[in-house]
Amino acid sequence: SGLVLVKNPHLDLMEEDVLYHLDLGTKTHNLPAMFGDIKFVCVGGSPNRMRAFAQFMQRELGLAGAGEEVADICGGSDRYAMYRAGPVLSISHGMGIPSISIMLHELIKLLHHAKCRDVTIIRIGTSGGLGIEAGSVVITDTAVDSSFQPRFEQVVLDDVVVRSTELDKDLAEELLACSRDIPDFPTLIGHTMCTYDFYEGQGRLDGALCSFSSEKKLEYLRRAYDAGVRNIEMESTAFAALCGLCGLKGES
Amino acid sequence: SGLVLVKNPHLDLMEEDVLYHLDLGTKTHNLPAMFGDIKFVCVGGSPNRMRAFAQFMQRELGLAGAGEEVADICGGSDRYAMYRAGPVLSISHGMGIPSISIMLHELIKLLHHAKCRDVTIIRIGTSGGLGIEAGSVVITDTAVDSSFQPRFEQVVLDDVVVRSTELDKDLAEELLACSRDIPDFPTLIGHTMCTYDFYEGQGRLDGALCSFSSEKKLEYLRRAYDAGVRNIEMESTAFAALCGLCGLKGES
Repeated sequence: SGLVLVKNPHLDLMEEDVLYHLDLGTKTHNLPAMFGDIKFVCVGGSPNRMRAFAQFMQRELGLAGAGEEVADICGGSDRYAMYRAGPVLSISHGMGIPSISIMLHELIKLLHHAKCRDVTIIRIGTSGGLGIEAGSVVITDTAVDSSFQPRFEQVVLDDVVVRSTELDKDLAEELLACSRDIPDFPTLIGHTMCTYDFYEGQGRLDGALCSFSSEKKLEYLRRAYDAGVRNIEMESTAFAALCGLCGLKGES
Repeated sequence: SGLVLVKNPHLDLMEEDVLYHLDLGTKTHNLPAMFGDIKFVCVGGSPNRMRAFAQFMQRELGLAGAGEEVADICGGSDRYAMYRAGPVLSISHGMGIPSISIMLHELIKLLHHAKCRDVTIIRIGTSGGLGIEAGSVVITDTAVDSSFQPRFEQVVLDDVVVRSTELDKDLAEELLACSRDIPDFPTLIGHTMCTYDFYEGQGRLDGALCSFSSEKKLEYLRRAYDAGVRNIEMESTAFAALCGLCGLKGES
C-alpha cells in the first residue's frame, strides 16, 4: 500500500500522540493536511544546513517563495529543526544514534498519522572518508557497526534486539546514476561504518582524552577498508535499522 | 594542582587544537584569557534552556548586564550553544551519549588549554522519575547502565574500554544540603539510569515503533527501583565516566 508500517498496536488506540521533540501532535495539528503529500524526507545533523538544503530544494524545484526565508515547522522546540520545500521535508537530527533515534521515532509516527504513501528517506551529511579521494560522496549500500557487521543492537528494556542495516540497493544505484550527470563529482557505493563516538570511537590521536597507538589505529582502519568500509559517521546503523523496521525506502 | 588531567600526550605536541564543534581553537582564540577564571560548568540538553540558565545565574550573582541578552560563545557553530555568567559557564549538549561525549571532549580540552583550576561540573536536566513524587530533583550518587551496573562501556577502535561512573559524593551531599534551604522542593540522592534510547530503551508503550508487554516493562522498572534507580535519562554514564577520567569534580 506504500504506507508506513508501525508495529505498535497501542499507537492507534491512543486518544492523542504527542511528538514532543518535534513540537507537533495529532490533536494540536492536522498532520494529514500539513504532511500528507510529502514524498521525500532528507535528514542531516545540523539545523542550519538542513535549512540551507530546504532553500536549495526550493530553488531547484522552481517553487514560489524561492530565495526567501523558510519557516521552522518545529519552531516551538529547540531539539530539531524542520523545513519543507514542496514534496520534500528537510529535518535535522543532531549528533549520534540516540539523537537520530528520537527524531526518527517521531518522524515515522508523523508520516503514519499523516497517511503519507511511498516516501523515500535519505540521510545526507559529512563523514570521514576511508582510502578515497577527499570530497567524494559515498552512497551507502550497507551500514556496519565498529566490528564491520551489518547489524544494529538496540537495548529494549534489558533485552538486546538485533536489527538488519541493509539499505535500498535500487535507490543506491539510482543515486549513483544521478551523480554521473554531474561532472567532477566523485561518487561511489560502499559500506558506511557507524560509531558511538567521534574522538575515541574513531581513534582520533589528536583529539581524544586518552591516547592510542597509531599502529593499532592504522591496522584497524586497514581491516575496515578490507571489509568494504569507505566512510565513517555516527548515525547510519540506527537510520538503516529504523527505516527497515517500518518499510521505508531509505538511503544514506 | 586542581588542573584538568588530559591523558593524551599528543595533545601538548600539537601546533593547534581546533575544537570543531564549539567553533573555538587554540590559535584563533586566547582560551586562558576567555576562560581561565571559570570555576563552575553547567551542562544540559537544550540550547534555549542553557541560555535561560545563564541569564538566571547573571541575576542570582548580581552581575552587570543582568536581564539583558547573553551572547552565544559558540555562535559560529549550530552544534552546541555556550554562555557565561561570571565564573559560571552554561553549555548545551544535545541528546544522548554520543552528543554529550563530543561536547565533553572539547569542553575538557578547553578547560585544559585555558589552565582552569578546581572546576566543578554539574549536569542539569529533565529526567523520568521512578517511584518518586513528580517534580522531585534527583541528585545522582552513581550513574548506572540499563543492567543497573555502575559502568560505561566505550568502544575505542574495536576494543571495549569499561569506565567507572561514580560521581562526587561530597558534592552530592553539599547539593542536598542546599536544597534544604528551599521550601517545597523535594530533593533526594539516588542512582540515575542512562539509556541509549528514549522510546524503545525506556519501554514507552505509547511512543515506540515496536510493541512491548506492559507486564515486562513493570517488572523491569520494579527491578530498577530495587537496585536503587530513582530516575532515567540518556547522558549520565558518559558524563560520569569522562569527568572521572579527567579528575573533574562532577555531579548530575
